[in-house]
Amino acid sequence: MTADVPEEVAEPAVLAREVARLGYVLDDEQVAAMRAAVVGAEPAVAALRRRPVPMDGGADPAHGDRWVRVAARTREPSATVSASGGGSDGSDGSDGSDGSDGSDGSDGSDGSDGSDGSDGGVGDLLAAFAAGRTTPDEAVAGALARLRDAHEALNCTIRFLDERARSAAAESTRRWAEGRPRPLEGVPFGVKDVIDVAGVPTTAGSWCHGDTPAAASATVVRRLEEAGAIPVSKDATTEFAVGGPHPPRFGAVRNPWDAGRWAGGSSTGSAAAVAARAVPFALGTDVGGSVRLPSAWNGLTGLKPTAGAIPRTGVVPLSWTAETVGPLTRSAADTARVFALLRGPDGVDPRGVDPRGADPRTGDLPPSAPGERRDLTGVRVAVVGGEVAAFCDADVRAGLDAVVAHLVAAGADVVEAELPRGAAALPIGYEIVFAEAATLHRLDRDRWDRYDPVTVRRISQGITTPAVDYLRALQFRAELQRELDALLDPALERADLLVMPTCPSTAPSLPEAGSDATVVVDGEVHPLYAAQSRTTMIANLTGAPALALPSGFAADGCPTSVQFVGRPHDEAVLLEVAGVLQARTDHHRTRPPLVTGSSLV
Amino acid sequence: MTADVPEEVAEPAVLAREVARLGYVLDDEQVAAMRAAVVGAEPAVAALRRRPVPMDGGADPAHGDRWVRVAARTREPSATVSASGGGSDGSDGSDGSDGSDGSDGSDGSDGSDGSDGSDGGVGDLLAAFAAGRTTPDEAVAGALARLRDAHEALNCTIRFLDERARSAAAESTRRWAEGRPRPLEGVPFGVKDVIDVAGVPTTAGSWCHGDTPAAASATVVRRLEEAGAIPVSKDATTEFAVGGPHPPRFGAVRNPWDAGRWAGGSSTGSAAAVAARAVPFALGTDVGGSVRLPSAWNGLTGLKPTAGAIPRTGVVPLSWTAETVGPLTRSAADTARVFALLRGPDGVDPRGVDPRGADPRTGDLPPSAPGERRDLTGVRVAVVGGEVAAFCDADVRAGLDAVVAHLVAAGADVVEAELPRGAAALPIGYEIVFAEAATLHRLDRDRWDRYDPVTVRRISQGITTPAVDYLRALQFRAELQRELDALLDPALERADLLVMPTCPSTAPSLPEAGSDATVVVDGEVHPLYAAQSRTTMIANLTGAPALALPSGFAADGCPTSVQFVGRPHDEAVLLEVAGVLQARTDHHRTRPPLVTGSSLV
Repeated sequence: MTADVPEEVAEPAVLAREVARLGYVLDDEQVAAMRAAVVGAEPAVAALRRRPVPMDGGADPAHGDRWVRVAARTREPSATVSASGGGSDGSDGSDGSDGSDGSDGSDGSDGSDGSDGSDGGVGDLLAAFAAGRTTPDEAVAGALARLRDAHEALNCTIRFLDERARSAAAESTRRWAEGRPRPLEGVPFGVKDVIDVAGVPTTAGSWCHGDTPAAASATVVRRLEEAGAIPVSKDATTEFAVGGPHPPRFGAVRNPWDAGRWAGGSSTGSAAAVAARAVPFALGTDVGGSVRLPSAWNGLTGLKPTAGAIPRTGVVPLSWTAETVGPLTRSAADTARVFALLRGPDGVDPRGVDPRGADPRTGDLPPSAPGERRDLTGVRVAVVGGEVAAFCDADVRAGLDAVVAHLVAAGADVVEAELPRGAAALPIGYEIVFAEAATLHRLDRDRWDRYDPVTVRRISQGITTPAVDYLRALQFRAELQRELDALLDPALERADLLVMPTCPSTAPSLPEAGSDATVVVDGEVHPLYAAQSRTTMIANLTGAPALALPSGFAADGCPTSVQFVGRPHDEAVLLEVAGVLQARTDHHRTRPPLVTGSSLV
Repeated sequence: MTADVPEEVAEPAVLAREVARLGYVLDDEQVAAMRAAVVGAEPAVAALRRRPVPMDGGADPAHGDRWVRVAARTREPSATVSASGGGSDGSDGSDGSDGSDGSDGSDGSDGSDGSDGSDGGVGDLLAAFAAGRTTPDEAVAGALARLRDAHEALNCTIRFLDERARSAAAESTRRWAEGRPRPLEGVPFGVKDVIDVAGVPTTAGSWCHGDTPAAASATVVRRLEEAGAIPVSKDATTEFAVGGPHPPRFGAVRNPWDAGRWAGGSSTGSAAAVAARAVPFALGTDVGGSVRLPSAWNGLTGLKPTAGAIPRTGVVPLSWTAETVGPLTRSAADTARVFALLRGPDGVDPRGVDPRGADPRTGDLPPSAPGERRDLTGVRVAVVGGEVAAFCDADVRAGLDAVVAHLVAAGADVVEAELPRGAAALPIGYEIVFAEAATLHRLDRDRWDRYDPVTVRRISQGITTPAVDYLRALQFRAELQRELDALLDPALERADLLVMPTCPSTAPSLPEAGSDATVVVDGEVHPLYAAQSRTTMIANLTGAPALALPSGFAADGCPTSVQFVGRPHDEAVLLEVAGVLQARTDHHRTRPPLVTGSSLV
């Protein structure tokens, strides 16, 4: 009879045979690394096994998938949001810098910070096109030139799309001249190299993905191109969006705020390019924080949308449950502009959710742009405390506190809240992510030595995950969703959004290849993967929308960030509140030291 | 480095430690039985591991869930179906018996086959109430009496609901007297004892489920009660709908056609009670054939509806992906009547699908009752050949051929078709079912010796299933759905339904407790679980609707059965075609030798 003492994870030789039985190839060292990862996750995973299983239908993992669909049908448009079709990026008079280091004080609103225009954002560029101050031809040429400068310093670009972009720019220039511009006509943007652009290979940052030109653009790229925007680059990424800072094929991406640091990932090159002001925005993906973490570490505004809100068609898959596509920009206003063009089912992605839901009375898509509001009267904000937010550098905490102070000054109600299951979101989320990733990635024997060892270690953690543990993790997902509901339920007049750190630290150090990346929290060094996604995984696991935005600067001169988490399909509230904050601060307009001399339109 | 030779399933000692680590309790014998089951499934499961994984989004398991939702939105009402609100059970003039043994020749349509009425069905009973020939008081008292007789012979009943039923019967009698009957006013029915009836315990056929009275009725029971129907019994079931023929708490259920045989499961008592003419219908559940197999072996008409069409709220769960609730009746007309009352989302079951889909133009629920049609001109039927249907007793095959001949005579086009992935549906379906069942059932140390050993052996097969294999099984599900689409796509003018055997044999022998049940196919003895669900699992795995109906009798005097499989949400076509068939045959009216002397209304 099996013992009363809980058994440990099986020995390496046993795991090795199981791995082989399941069709994977790992050497002894990789098996040992895999086992260590599984052992590390075991306490959190084992805790789920001990709990009673509800036999009343509550254990059905489908509850977790249904959460975002039900929310789509029942949501009321937020009373705080009014539609706004365009307009400025909110830079209409700042309250001034909060005194942190590194800000250059420019607000860039009138296009006059330097030689050829501001480094504002999408709105400013469109205004410059409209006013004839520049053209798409010039903007795209400038973007490609700045991108090459950025790449030389930061290693942020896998492929420059010169010919394709210049051809599109000519068309956009014509359209402006003829007075018939589309919504983003001529605006250049970067594309993380896990997202297809037609006619161009997608490398996924790897030797192992193939080099066939994509037959079609991903839905998100197609939609932006149909709006006149122009892809100018395939941006660097960690391998398959899951590997470490040193993908073997392309090497590490440096941080424009501190060249000794990593840009953060997995949307590494996209973040560096936008932070370096080469392009006003880029498309990334976020499975456990991969848009929001590099956004946090580069002073950007990064959105992980509601699960199913933005189609993933044409994106290299990593985890069906957790993954989203999202924009990295320099302002909530730009995020809103881009999000409005990306959202909505495409009829191909089986997880697409129509935010209008099934009720025809709901009418048009809910507005997604921040409105004209200048204050937050009537908005309730819950600051999440407890274990999930406790592990946090003092400078990051100070940034969050400053943000909260601004929200209060703008009229918001602020309450404290806790998310008891939030602390388990990281290990349980990874359990789902890695099992799904292992289903996708065979690590086959023909190429096993060409992977980033970090890719192998992380994906292999999912090879031997039992289905019963995976299903229990999906049950946990539904429970965490219910905890979010309890904090955010409009029917109970609870909060409109949650506030928590995006991550516990500023940007990670860039280790030597073969060493693990680390972060520093209050002077102590911690392994990267144990720290970085502690709060970001909450939104990936549940499907809730989450927005990372700059909150200030640490003593080391690097950006700090704060995270807003909202109800499914309520990106508008997050963007609205962020917009009001960014009208009162200028962290988002502060340029990194490594920005090249040539300025941007 | 891991070997090139595929590894075997781990040794028993290794599995035992893993089982314990995952929180289960098994003794050495049970571990050995579990291992044997896993080894038996390994070839089919391993075949999935070797296949390339599509990286284009096609591997997302969500495709399998979406199939029934998309079909709901896009279906056109079948051109062959006309709405019919009530009417007879189709016994309007038979072409006569097909000469098989056992038929008593009565067509029962005019209520005059014996002392107090026909054993027709729901329609005849309602007509008798309307004509004043009997009352619900009498009908329920008679049902309870016949049920006691049946139970004495067959052991089909776990609980008689005398008090509850008589009280409801009084109300129903009043309503008829007052001229305000609801659709099924006063009609008695049985309830498989995994389905909750308010105020009554649900045993799930086990010592291990508890004896607390259910707080509320399952949705399916509530809907029938709101229509005036009256639950009279909690019917015997295999343990948790997954155990063997001899549940320890209640013992085996015999077959009314041959007392030396098993009624078949898992809806054992429900089938026996309906076949014994104690009640006109009963509610069962079907995870791998558990409505259709006992229907096949008892001469009944049994429906496994489209996944999500009938809510499972208040039903003891076994497998979220594969499980459905469905009626066992004695005619397609009765199945249609009951189905119409059961179908439709209840807002609680997260897998509920509205057959109207998201398009308001689709209007009312598609009709589910067979219409008035007398022929099948314009209906295309595909007879599935190949490996999936090859393993089949000659008498079962003869029954299927006779059915096809009737369909041709009625005007249908008949074509041959193959379902290449169909043969793998059984092992892959079980892989999903048992992993989900193991997630629900802990087999905890406090009660492990009170389970049916067959329950333990079958559920334990899922304990060590890897998540990567489970996810690959869900990918296979989507592929099999696409194979069904290719045969059934209305846009391609393909078949309206598929025809295949329900199962390869007549009813299983009833073994001694501790021995495994067997079936006989062309004189050869085969283990039950390797044979019984070979074709039924196709519909459970994909979510397609499937109907089992009587096709004749074998040389041994036991019923044979044929199975129709259709497009998602197209139960109407299956019922329509079955209704035409039952107008031309009387297998479904043939009474088993064990039917008690007292006849039914």
